[in-house]
Amino acid sequence: MTYVRNAWYVAAWSRDLEVAKPFATSILGEPIVLWTSETGQLAALEDRCVHRLAPLSLGRCEGPHLRCMYHGLMFASDGQVVEIPGQDIVPAQARVRAYPVIDRHDWIWIWMGEAGLADPALIPPAIGLSDPDWILGHGQLDYAAEARLICDNLLDFSHLTFVHAASFGAGSEFAAHPPKITPLDRGVRVTRWLPNPAGSPRNPSDVAMESYQSYDFLIPGILLMWSGNYPLGTAARLGAEAPALADAVSGLNFTSQAVTPMAAQTSRYFFSWGPHIRDGDLAKRDSMMTMAGAAFAEDKRMIEAQQRVIAATPDPRIMPIAHDKGITLYNRLVEKLATSQPENLESAA
Amino acid sequence: MTYVRNAWYVAAWSRDLEVAKPFATSILGEPIVLWTSETGQLAALEDRCVHRLAPLSLGRCEGPHLRCMYHGLMFASDGQVVEIPGQDIVPAQARVRAYPVIDRHDWIWIWMGEAGLADPALIPPAIGLSDPDWILGHGQLDYAAEARLICDNLLDFSHLTFVHAASFGAGSEFAAHPPKITPLDRGVRVTRWLPNPAGSPRNPSDVAMESYQSYDFLIPGILLMWSGNYPLGTAARLGAEAPALADAVSGLNFTSQAVTPMAAQTSRYFFSWGPHIRDGDLAKRDSMMTMAGAAFAEDKRMIEAQQRVIAATPDPRIMPIAHDKGITLYNRLVEKLATSQPENLESAA
Amino acid sequence: MTYVRNAWYVAAWSRDLEVAKPFATSILGEPIVLWTSETGQLAALEDRCVHRLAPLSLGRCEGPHLRCMYHGLMFASDGQVVEIPGQDIVPAQARVRAYPVIDRHDWIWIWMGEAGLADPALIPPAIGLSDPDWILGHGQLDYAAEARLICDNLLDFSHLTFVHAASFGAGSEFAAHPPKITPLDRGVRVTRWLPNPAGSPRNPSDVAMESYQSYDFLIPGILLMWSGNYPLGTAARLGAEAPALADAVSGLNFTSQAVTPMAAQTSRYFFSWGPHIRDGDLAKRDSMMTMAGAAFAEDKRMIEAQQRVIAATPDPRIMPIAHDKGITLYNRLVEKLATSQPENLESAA
Repeated sequence: MTYVRNAWYVAAWSRDLEVAKPFATSILGEPIVLWTSETGQLAALEDRCVHRLAPLSLGRCEGPHLRCMYHGLMFASDGQVVEIPGQDIVPAQARVRAYPVIDRHDWIWIWMGEAGLADPALIPPAIGLSDPDWILGHGQLDYAAEARLICDNLLDFSHLTFVHAASFGAGSEFAAHPPKITPLDRGVRVTRWLPNPAGSPRNPSDVAMESYQSYDFLIPGILLMWSGNYPLGTAARLGAEAPALADAVSGLNFTSQAVTPMAAQTSRYFFSWGPHIRDGDLAKRDSMMTMAGAAFAEDKRMIEAQQRVIAATPDPRIMPIAHDKGITLYNRLVEKLATSQPENLESAA
Repeated sequence: MTYVRNAWYVAAWSRDLEVAKPFATSILGEPIVLWTSETGQLAALEDRCVHRLAPLSLGRCEGPHLRCMYHGLMFASDGQVVEIPGQDIVPAQARVRAYPVIDRHDWIWIWMGEAGLADPALIPPAIGLSDPDWILGHGQLDYAAEARLICDNLLDFSHLTFVHAASFGAGSEFAAHPPKITPLDRGVRVTRWLPNPAGSPRNPSDVAMESYQSYDFLIPGILLMWSGNYPLGTAARLGAEAPALADAVSGLNFTSQAVTPMAAQTSRYFFSWGPHIRDGDLAKRDSMMTMAGAAFAEDKRMIEAQQRVIAATPDPRIMPIAHDKGITLYNRLVEKLATSQPENLESAA
Repeated sequence: MTYVRNAWYVAAWSRDLEVAKPFATSILGEPIVLWTSETGQLAALEDRCVHRLAPLSLGRCEGPHLRCMYHGLMFASDGQVVEIPGQDIVPAQARVRAYPVIDRHDWIWIWMGEAGLADPALIPPAIGLSDPDWILGHGQLDYAAEARLICDNLLDFSHLTFVHAASFGAGSEFAAHPPKITPLDRGVRVTRWLPNPAGSPRNPSDVAMESYQSYDFLIPGILLMWSGNYPLGTAARLGAEAPALADAVSGLNFTSQAVTPMAAQTSRYFFSWGPHIRDGDLAKRDSMMTMAGAAFAEDKRMIEAQQRVIAATPDPRIMPIAHDKGITLYNRLVEKLATSQPENLESAA
């Protein structure tokens, strides 16, 4: 399984990092410890002491440093050991890998590739929980499945018709009609106009509407989607092109989602969702999150089952169908960006 | 471990299949989905969608078809895809393997070998739960052990003396004297005369008897056994040959058992047992099933422990003893029938 | 991972063997069954029947023998089969491996190497629970970690400063100053003088003292340690050399510990600890054992975490520090003694 290393991966919700408390995770099979010092400095190191490989995440934050609590080696935020108890000289090679790390949009982003290429401009424009225009709930799920299977799921919403008929009240429209797929520099854009009759889950009013739904799916597995309702005839008037977000007359909402490969067959899925302040409140947000909770459990059940079948199949092959267009486009981009770099998950994990 | 593919394997109790509800299992390491349509048609397919390998057993029965509930591909009972949502043309190679499947003797039998050789006459003559002459209880156990170890167990009843002294009240007679072993076309027959003194578990009367016990152990792991009590002197009168079943004066009972290899080291064991209508009632059946439940738990404990030792032994070898005659004969037959075909479990699992 | 086979390994606490009841364990990946006959004879056999590999530990003790309870083969304490039910002749090769085994110091010791080299004089001089001079508590812990990591832990007490600051109240002295390390024929001796101010956990009196701590760490993983308090100035008077144990004025205590590799990544850790009769009572022993229980849980948490990191690291390497001197010396001895013999754990497990 190939992944793009030169990319920002979501490691955690910013609010889940407590000050001066190490936070353990893993990305692309690499154990990583994150911490915020008492003065607010964020750091990410290889979670493996250079001495005897104890996890630094069992360590103790001391000022800007992190001390391994097995034999007391102290690490600076750049990975360099700065103290070895019982020993006067610290060799220069006493260091672990440090990862570029940024707190943005209420997510902690880690650059898994070559540090010199870590450009903050490549962080996808997610909408954070603290954005004043949106009322967002959030959550996360751990998957016993490789991240690519979750990305594939998110790149083809035809599954809504079958997997989410109950939770999202999705009808046949998702499977019947392909969306418009547009290539982006680091992803694909998936857009569609959908009928939204009066009284549907997406439209609790008594007036029939049209819904527009647009998401960008970006390297290394970030989905940013908004949707909203428009008066009947809008799609025709625009020649099925994209409306302005601000012109939505109801139901405007936004979801940011991130799929992070923890190891070869485990992943963490982060998501937020909620209405625009114009179109909802905390109660609306909570009912949307309840719906999402049910839907994402449906996905997890299906994808983990799919993973088990794949793992038990000697030579697993897929047979692409018409709805796979977005998946194919995105995965070609992954292959292209991944092979222009020396490493991939299989060599790392 | 070698298995005979050209054979009918028990996949389930017929009554465990609900109409229009997919049933998941695996045989010889192959995932299989079974279902009965609303019109009563029974089908068995490879449980792995041709599109992205989701299990079809998470799907939905629609008329005679089964729809994959990930992206909606619809399968006919012969394995051919008949609908792909969002796509007009269905390629001919869009198909999964279909297995010959028959409902007989209250078991669902699946032919794991070449479909053209699937002869229903090769289904062993088990006695089903609905047979009017017998009052049968039934059950099943999942083993964390390869099926062959369970077959070996059933082919040598000398273990009754040691494993089942408590549950079956077995005495030294099973270990002390070998049974008569007779080769059959697709199995072996194991028969013995046993003393049955007054008041023994097999003979609750106050008159001493002789018991006759006869079982066929048939490819691919089917045990069909009856036993009954005869007046003292019957064995001598018959020169130790087989009596007529109908001549038993008491204690006539029948058990059908099936050992199904699910994967390399997991198996499912199906069993029924109970008295002839002439010699018992529901209460008798229930007390027999209670005894069997205790005994089969004793077997499972021993065989799973044996499996763990074998798995931890670099080059496991057995040392055959006199009581292994039936095992040796049967396993030679397995080897012969298995090697006259191209595949075995190891290449499949 | 290399282990010394020609050594006595602790298999169990003597008191955990019930008369005529088989006891299962494994050492160096080899399954072993222990039992004491009704006449008090101790035996240790390979826990794997020569017939079909069932574990003998599910067997039944009969006089001096152990009967496999699958098909009834009976084993003498030298591993020879002495009875095969249903068969008159017992072949000479019907035997399993017997291990030299000795009950000493309240531990059952098993010799894992060449039987002819099993010299009881090589059993380390542990202090048993029944020794009248000491009041000892005892316990054991199973580790999901290779034994070598636990040995490494015990060979460098600088970890006390970090891992056991809470439980043992260890201060910076362990990490700040290296102990004296002395090579022994089959191990290393680790000794140190420590300041022991009034009111410290090691010295509940109101007079400041000096503590001396000395342990031998012996092949194949046996720690024997005593410590005691001495009047201020004793270390200087002795030129930092060892005091006489009997001259301790308070706090004299002893601990025997054994690390047994069960398999490649599982171990069993046996320990006793308590005061000299002169310096404590049952209440003192119990408070020490409570402290030890907390401390050993801290070790287990760290070492099992370290093991998981090592297992997930493709090419794990350590970077030795000054405090590793004892570890390095001991492990070189292990390498030397292990390579002068043909087998090691990797070929056995």
